[in-house]
Amino acid sequence: MSRKRIVVIGGTAAGPKAAARAKRLDENADVTLLQKAPNLSMASCGYPYYVAGSVKERDKLLATPAGVVRDPAFFAGAKGVAALTGTEVTAIDRAAHTIAWKRAASGETGHLPYDKLIIATGSSPKIPPIPGRELAGVTTLASLEDADLLREKAKAMPGGRAVIVGGGLIGMETCEALTDAGLAVTVVEALPQILGFLDPELALLVANHAKAKGAAVLTGVGLSEILGANGAVSGVRLADGRELPCSLVVLAIGVAPNVALAKAAGLELGATGGIKIDAHMRTSDPDIYAAGDCVEVTNRLTGQPMLAPYGDLANLEGRVAGENAALGDTATFPGTIGSGICKVFDFAAGSTGLSERRAREAGIDVVSAVNAGSDIPGFMGAKLLVSKIVAEAKTGRILGFSCVGPGNVNRQVAEMAMAILGGLTVDDLAMADLPYAPPYSLAIDHAIASAHILQNKMRGLMRSVGNGEIKARLDAGDRPLLLDVRGPKEFERTRLGLGETLIPVGQLRKRLAELPQDKTTPIVAYCGVSMRAYEAQRMLLAAGYDNVTVMEGGLAAWPFAREK
Amino acid sequence: MSRKRIVVIGGTAAGPKAAARAKRLDENADVTLLQKAPNLSMASCGYPYYVAGSVKERDKLLATPAGVVRDPAFFAGAKGVAALTGTEVTAIDRAAHTIAWKRAASGETGHLPYDKLIIATGSSPKIPPIPGRELAGVTTLASLEDADLLREKAKAMPGGRAVIVGGGLIGMETCEALTDAGLAVTVVEALPQILGFLDPELALLVANHAKAKGAAVLTGVGLSEILGANGAVSGVRLADGRELPCSLVVLAIGVAPNVALAKAAGLELGATGGIKIDAHMRTSDPDIYAAGDCVEVTNRLTGQPMLAPYGDLANLEGRVAGENAALGDTATFPGTIGSGICKVFDFAAGSTGLSERRAREAGIDVVSAVNAGSDIPGFMGAKLLVSKIVAEAKTGRILGFSCVGPGNVNRQVAEMAMAILGGLTVDDLAMADLPYAPPYSLAIDHAIASAHILQNKMRGLMRSVGNGEIKARLDAGDRPLLLDVRGPKEFERTRLGLGETLIPVGQLRKRLAELPQDKTTPIVAYCGVSMRAYEAQRMLLAAGYDNVTVMEGGLAAWPFAREK
Repeated sequence: MSRKRIVVIGGTAAGPKAAARAKRLDENADVTLLQKAPNLSMASCGYPYYVAGSVKERDKLLATPAGVVRDPAFFAGAKGVAALTGTEVTAIDRAAHTIAWKRAASGETGHLPYDKLIIATGSSPKIPPIPGRELAGVTTLASLEDADLLREKAKAMPGGRAVIVGGGLIGMETCEALTDAGLAVTVVEALPQILGFLDPELALLVANHAKAKGAAVLTGVGLSEILGANGAVSGVRLADGRELPCSLVVLAIGVAPNVALAKAAGLELGATGGIKIDAHMRTSDPDIYAAGDCVEVTNRLTGQPMLAPYGDLANLEGRVAGENAALGDTATFPGTIGSGICKVFDFAAGSTGLSERRAREAGIDVVSAVNAGSDIPGFMGAKLLVSKIVAEAKTGRILGFSCVGPGNVNRQVAEMAMAILGGLTVDDLAMADLPYAPPYSLAIDHAIASAHILQNKMRGLMRSVGNGEIKARLDAGDRPLLLDVRGPKEFERTRLGLGETLIPVGQLRKRLAELPQDKTTPIVAYCGVSMRAYEAQRMLLAAGYDNVTVMEGGLAAWPFAREK
Repeated sequence: MSRKRIVVIGGTAAGPKAAARAKRLDENADVTLLQKAPNLSMASCGYPYYVAGSVKERDKLLATPAGVVRDPAFFAGAKGVAALTGTEVTAIDRAAHTIAWKRAASGETGHLPYDKLIIATGSSPKIPPIPGRELAGVTTLASLEDADLLREKAKAMPGGRAVIVGGGLIGMETCEALTDAGLAVTVVEALPQILGFLDPELALLVANHAKAKGAAVLTGVGLSEILGANGAVSGVRLADGRELPCSLVVLAIGVAPNVALAKAAGLELGATGGIKIDAHMRTSDPDIYAAGDCVEVTNRLTGQPMLAPYGDLANLEGRVAGENAALGDTATFPGTIGSGICKVFDFAAGSTGLSERRAREAGIDVVSAVNAGSDIPGFMGAKLLVSKIVAEAKTGRILGFSCVGPGNVNRQVAEMAMAILGGLTVDDLAMADLPYAPPYSLAIDHAIASAHILQNKMRGLMRSVGNGEIKARLDAGDRPLLLDVRGPKEFERTRLGLGETLIPVGQLRKRLAELPQDKTTPIVAYCGVSMRAYEAQRMLLAAGYDNVTVMEGGLAAWPFAREK
């Protein structure tokens, strides 16, 4: 029996995983991996921490947990995979079942035959077509070499100014990294908000936090030009004409799948531009698989194709592609629900499933609720979580959950990703059985409380809206009675400052006379997190006030200006 | 229309939740809550941290997130609930629809009529029937008064000796609290292991950690007597005759439901001794509900009745009972899967669903796998997690997950609780889509890696057993070739010390000649966490060695003695 030849193109995340998995499942296969870059298995999600200096040793980004650098010798010995670095694949000849390669250093070229081919060519950062993008000091953060450069730059220019173009996940991580490294950072985002995976009010809380940490965050304004002097960056000009001086520009407006090779070989691409694959990660050629940032995957909640260039999915996809190349199509990749998290200074921002906006864009009739609260009990040192839960209106099935704040966002988003994968409804979540102890969560976990709120809302027990809607109404000239039901000390510390009325919830039953006798006057009730406001609404409803709206998340979730 | 009278017996967790929920849903109801203890809504899970001194202010255990102490005035104002403290309910007259009460301070008695009654009488610590239990210095940690006493005792006797009877959740939390407070602590557990919700090997890792932190942990030995002098504790005598001097004994052998009142009223009790309830939290009397530690609930995985005296469930049960008392049986409580977590010094120990032992006791044919690994990447400061996943053999449905270690156990157990609630299978979990970023998890999350291991095992790709089985074989005289496939530096740092052979995995293909030429000699392969051992097994299998067993979790999960 001749040995099966499996060739893998790409050596960062999906490629090495696919190659190693294939070899483990078929020790008699010849597995060859070709990598254009000089390194293998780079922990690219760690670049921001290397730039910031919190990761000190470069090798740590390339090493196994046991501390061995994943170089070709490691791949040969431990994995049984022939890994060729600095070696670009220039063409795929599907008829001949060969690939053509070229070595960057020597110019050497050659061909390699394959029985099964796995394409894991990854993605490349998008470069906006604006003048000045070729100037020295303009970079992306997409390769280890980029990270080296940024780290050096940051060290060399303490107190210097940097502009980050794009307020997505990588943009905000880079914002933190460069700020931590001592630079004055401005993030410029053309869309009205940063972190597009969040709904606007949550994104605004993160932007506020980044500003409090010293970064400038400009939204709703694009870049028109990168300004230079003597071939180096001297600043940027925004679309509105403003100029910002800086000596470093990081472009972080997203990535595009690397599909040139696949396209030239006549493989089918999807509507999003990624390589089209089936559930077995197989392309339109039965002997070619693809995995990682270069492919188009299915969103499990909308059924729609999407690009999902994330390191965790790349590993799972690579595992499936590697198995199927070795064994035949025994493994399937079910698609993604879209889960992510990032650290932005002392906040985490995470999301799983669909945001409210994206669900509506997909034509789904949804209900949602914002919840603000503690991650653990006050006596243990509680930190704030602000989240939004999204569910299908008809069935109550949970479709999305986003969460931001200094609290333990990580647990919340991870558990809610599993809840969505399991098809849980709001009623299921309201009675979920989660691990509780004071160092780790509240007795009623934040996500369970979110379900309680949404359940009350869906049943008409609570009538509430998000603060974005309240703000829009106020901006449009509406003047509801703003009813703050906290205690006087809390009111002293901070308040909206919009002419609100303070009646502590504990006194409300006795002080109804202070409210408009016309019981139909619109009232917007809130407190610190709007739990007491819900209680107030129940009291007022029983007293005949049936035009009371609770402002979800209360002051804790209010991302707009306030007093004090 | 006459106002509905809802009476709630018990004011710690389930009771206040039920009372407040009932009032919110029916503002026109008269809701009365009677509490035997002097305080209301005590955060009893926080007692260990109050004893240790990390929670400084007693009031914080009684206060809302906004800092208001939950006393009768608070309940009257904010909740609209009449709360009577220091007031014991002495009898329920079901025919007359009244309860009899007695005030401890004044001796005053009276009756109160109800339309709907909610019993939330909680549980009491079990007291072992041994001589000396009445001595001064013998206590439990079940009430705020107990916590006050222990806190004072701990302050008054720095360097003193304490014995904790029982190595369950409360016993181990108290062990940490008293050690942190400066006492020399010995835990005495009659069962062969501490923390009965864990399988033995994981429990042993936690016990090892507690010992490393200075506590003594004795398992498999009961207490026969508490020794005294002048009416105060002077030590304990163990069942094996050993005597341990001490001046403080904390009894923590579990709790029993408080059902005397319900039993005297003729309400049906369950086989476990808890009050029997239906899915609406209704007792055998249609006008009486029960919730919290005093009830028997259904295990959702086995269908069997069980006691589940946990604060989080008490709140959920109270919410259901309160709603149903107010509105009729509109809410249901689905039962528990058994989720819990506790902090033991720098370790967390958590579990959700069934341990392997409990699943087998319930007659379920299960498969399991131990996984040891990092919580986050090494370059971010990884900490160890050791876990065991349990699934139904026939269907692959996940039934249980336990996890211990210094790493982020909290996220793991929370997400796996949701996975179990959602009915996920091992295959589902293997392709789960979780939030990933280096500060928060690995690219392949620990739980997903656990699914990969178990999936490989179920498909026969990996042949592995737990270290408990390996240890038992060695103890029985088996002498397999112990094959350590780590690097020489790792071997220098620590090793089993049982005559093992070291061949690094990267050299294995070339050094097969060093293995027994008789390819059927049993080989047990392992490494740091046994990922490389799995690779070694795949190589060896292809080379004809078909009697190779991987020791799950490798050295990181090995809880027995080793060299260095």
